[in-house]
Amino acid sequence: MPRLPILNWLAHYSTEKLSDDTVAAVIVTIMLIPQSLAYAMLAGLPPEVGLYASILPLIAYAIFGSSMTLAVGPVAVVSLMTAAAVSQVAAPGSSAYLGAAILLALLSGVMLIGLGLARAGFLANLLSHPVISGFISASAILIAFSQFKHILGIPVIGHDMPTILASLWQNLGATNLPTFVIGVASIGFLFWVRSGLKPKLVQVGIRENLAGTLTKAGPVMAVIVTTACVAVFTLDQQGVSIVGVIPPGLPMPTLPALDFALARELIPAAFLISLVGFVESVSVGHTLAARRRERIQPNQELIGLGAANLASGFGGGFPVTGGFSRSVVNFDAGARTPLAGVMTAVMIALTALFLTPLFEFLPKAVLAATVIVAVLSLVDLRAIHRVWVFSKPDFVAMATTIAIVLGVGIEAGIIAGVVVSIAFLLAKIARPHVAVIGQIPGTQHYRNKNRHEVLQSEKVLAVRLDEMLYFLNGHTFEDAVGEVLSENTNLTDLVLLCHGINEIDASGLEVLESINARLDSLGIRFHLSEVKGPVMDRLERVGFKGHLSGQVFLSHYDAMSTLDPDFANAETELAK
Amino acid sequence: MPRLPILNWLAHYSTEKLSDDTVAAVIVTIMLIPQSLAYAMLAGLPPEVGLYASILPLIAYAIFGSSMTLAVGPVAVVSLMTAAAVSQVAAPGSSAYLGAAILLALLSGVMLIGLGLARAGFLANLLSHPVISGFISASAILIAFSQFKHILGIPVIGHDMPTILASLWQNLGATNLPTFVIGVASIGFLFWVRSGLKPKLVQVGIRENLAGTLTKAGPVMAVIVTTACVAVFTLDQQGVSIVGVIPPGLPMPTLPALDFALARELIPAAFLISLVGFVESVSVGHTLAARRRERIQPNQELIGLGAANLASGFGGGFPVTGGFSRSVVNFDAGARTPLAGVMTAVMIALTALFLTPLFEFLPKAVLAATVIVAVLSLVDLRAIHRVWVFSKPDFVAMATTIAIVLGVGIEAGIIAGVVVSIAFLLAKIARPHVAVIGQIPGTQHYRNKNRHEVLQSEKVLAVRLDEMLYFLNGHTFEDAVGEVLSENTNLTDLVLLCHGINEIDASGLEVLESINARLDSLGIRFHLSEVKGPVMDRLERVGFKGHLSGQVFLSHYDAMSTLDPDFANAETELAK
Repeated sequence: MPRLPILNWLAHYSTEKLSDDTVAAVIVTIMLIPQSLAYAMLAGLPPEVGLYASILPLIAYAIFGSSMTLAVGPVAVVSLMTAAAVSQVAAPGSSAYLGAAILLALLSGVMLIGLGLARAGFLANLLSHPVISGFISASAILIAFSQFKHILGIPVIGHDMPTILASLWQNLGATNLPTFVIGVASIGFLFWVRSGLKPKLVQVGIRENLAGTLTKAGPVMAVIVTTACVAVFTLDQQGVSIVGVIPPGLPMPTLPALDFALARELIPAAFLISLVGFVESVSVGHTLAARRRERIQPNQELIGLGAANLASGFGGGFPVTGGFSRSVVNFDAGARTPLAGVMTAVMIALTALFLTPLFEFLPKAVLAATVIVAVLSLVDLRAIHRVWVFSKPDFVAMATTIAIVLGVGIEAGIIAGVVVSIAFLLAKIARPHVAVIGQIPGTQHYRNKNRHEVLQSEKVLAVRLDEMLYFLNGHTFEDAVGEVLSENTNLTDLVLLCHGINEIDASGLEVLESINARLDSLGIRFHLSEVKGPVMDRLERVGFKGHLSGQVFLSHYDAMSTLDPDFANAETELAK
Repeated sequence: MPRLPILNWLAHYSTEKLSDDTVAAVIVTIMLIPQSLAYAMLAGLPPEVGLYASILPLIAYAIFGSSMTLAVGPVAVVSLMTAAAVSQVAAPGSSAYLGAAILLALLSGVMLIGLGLARAGFLANLLSHPVISGFISASAILIAFSQFKHILGIPVIGHDMPTILASLWQNLGATNLPTFVIGVASIGFLFWVRSGLKPKLVQVGIRENLAGTLTKAGPVMAVIVTTACVAVFTLDQQGVSIVGVIPPGLPMPTLPALDFALARELIPAAFLISLVGFVESVSVGHTLAARRRERIQPNQELIGLGAANLASGFGGGFPVTGGFSRSVVNFDAGARTPLAGVMTAVMIALTALFLTPLFEFLPKAVLAATVIVAVLSLVDLRAIHRVWVFSKPDFVAMATTIAIVLGVGIEAGIIAGVVVSIAFLLAKIARPHVAVIGQIPGTQHYRNKNRHEVLQSEKVLAVRLDEMLYFLNGHTFEDAVGEVLSENTNLTDLVLLCHGINEIDASGLEVLESINARLDSLGIRFHLSEVKGPVMDRLERVGFKGHLSGQVFLSHYDAMSTLDPDFANAETELAK
């Protein structure tokens, strides 16, 4: 068991770090307050639950997490996944709904810690880049559309595009004009803050970094202005939905009553939320750590995030993870250690204790605008195009993920993405590339005769297999060798260049023995060259060299010069 | 669409072939009659159904199948799978049970033909050798135990070992002595025929091949003797279960009424039966074809077996496939073409028409003995040991298959085997072998510095990755490069030897670019060597060479002699 991460950084703490961390904490808090309220709304929960989810988890992560600058709390995708999962088991708005969300956080916490102790961080690798990228883009679109109801002031249901669109269309006539004006104005303002404000600030002489950070206060400005408008013009009486009275104070940390039947129902969702949350967190963590030549330990991250989710559940919150935008803000604002997170937590707690009356007239439309602008920046069309150019299987995996996320739902989408990626991987292995090779004149190097001008021996045929030799492709490889043999006659030897064969399983061994027997019956000796160490170790366990009609050569050049000295001599001449 | 296989061999038919085929047909028929009755019993069906399943399917296969010597009909594993599937949806002995078995044959036929037309023969590759071998051994044990009830003359239920054993134990007291004597004597006789009779026959001057074939008549001899005993001593009145009156004649080919709800329930079982039947058939077909330098086409086999199953269903039979032992007998008896199968079918039909009265007093115990002796010869302990020595992951896949087949059932076992094999394959890819390499003195060949005495340049580090660079292992590889870098200082260049990288996906590309950027920031150039053609094609689609801080070299030797000429010169000296 490694040391608690907190012990590593607390021992070297300094007043200089304290001042950096304090500045970062203030900035992140300003950004986090509207986000917390908005993501709670996205999850279908009362707004104060968003604040609760931004207090204890930050402290827990500071103790157990390995990243210096990751900022945990409610994030968009996880909030939507929470809504989708919890609305299956409880009616939105009910106390059972809140209870299920809390249970989901606890389950997710237990799973993440379990995976961390089992050192199962590698599970995140099941999600390929294209699947993650497609998943994020599609979720962002789904989230944005799910928030339009707040911009229009109409009721809309569903956690998949067809349902959301149908529901939007049906209720479009009921649009509330003041709500719509507030919503659209907020969206416009927030987009302008993102793209137009920063250059202006830089123009008036503010440092680029600081300007970037200041623009993160845009949502708070929008919140203040619109709340004031609603309060002054009593727009809530004209149908503008507001946050309403938030009970001040903090919930006592409690251990919720455990409902095992409910827990069993929520387990699949909890697993996917854990996986997605972990992947988001680790990607951000890696990116930021690399910028400062620090490293994060994925398995320790699992424990840190697990502790954060347990803390969230005990403190009356819902599932959390490391958020991309807030972590970048934390980093850019100069945070040095997780103490910045602890200070953020204290400030959010003070907000929950004393400032909630300020949010009474806060219109839900501006929170929705915050979410929409935040998530739409995650849609990455350039990535989709790049994947299309680079690899069609990757593109299909990505497109499947996008289509299923939009058409069916977030959980189904991520499962489909993983399944399609693995299916393509298996299909790739099942159809290995096999090349007949020859010598590049003047070298000891052998390459595919169809791609390079090469010299071939007349009696020694050389073949290269570019794949592990496994159950998926053994028969195919055997057929390929059969085909090559039928095209070449009068052979004395066949050499298989093995540097592309990274592993052999028991089925692959059968195939090698079958090829050996077949060649033997044709009077052709079978040799291997450049067999990699781990593969040769394995073959030696069953005494394969003893069964082989030919030899195993260290290099392919060795093989050719031993088996056909005339050919190799000719080459040496040519090489001079 | 290729020509019907029958057209290929019928065009070159000769009287010589006819006489060979006739001899083989007679021998196979003698073997097939007791087998057909026994496997129908194993499937929980009336004995005549076994005969029906040995008529039309043979003719259909003769028209559509690609193997010259494969003998189709009921086989042990498929019969047990049929019993397990059908007993889930209908009561044994009911007409619904027979109807479901017929429907299963039809579904399996449609699926096999569909897979054949879709050229999906590669699906059989999902089953690794160890999984198939474990599956066969475990099924054989399961089948043998499921037949003990007939040897003991007691009722036993279940399609998994715990249930069968518990049921056997419970009813052991009710053992019927005359049945037990017949059963044990038959088992003893049949084992002796297999092992002891052949040497005796050879001793008295009979040709080895013929002696082997004659021993295949053992079951028929046991059937004749025991039937006579039962009839003469009226043992059936002392509790010996007999086959009883078999309705003579043949069923009219009919299209059964389609029950869609039932069909949907049977689809998963039909798929697994098709897959297992196909794998058994193709393994036998490959083995026999190789002996005569013939080839079978897996996709045509799917169509041949599909036609056989459709024919079985229409003719009142149950699922069939190419059987191992009967195909070997057919081959050894000298069959030249599938006409041998057609003649076998005719003889079985004549049996069903005229000889069924002979089977009335046939004791079920002798049929059970036939099955037990046949399947126990399939248990291959040597294969299990060999896999243990060669590869632990393969062994775990095999052991899992065996455990689940015995403990849960045949279908669950085969699914578990496939899932475990794929999981280990993914785990292998996820943990790639990475080696720091150096030059073998006096050659242009580079190998792992931990396994060979090699020379390394002081400023150019060379690393080899032995795996496709994919989403599963990208991060792991990046970490491995980071570790290697931390152990080597004062580097100017890093060369990645790529001959083991058989494919790169979009996630792998991200990793290469990330490594390139990281090295760039450390002032180290990043080069690739021996990139395989298909991989380079892919990298070029996104202009990767343009992003790379270094170059792409044809051979690793080129790379080293270009980047560190002093090092390469030293080598040239040494090489002389």
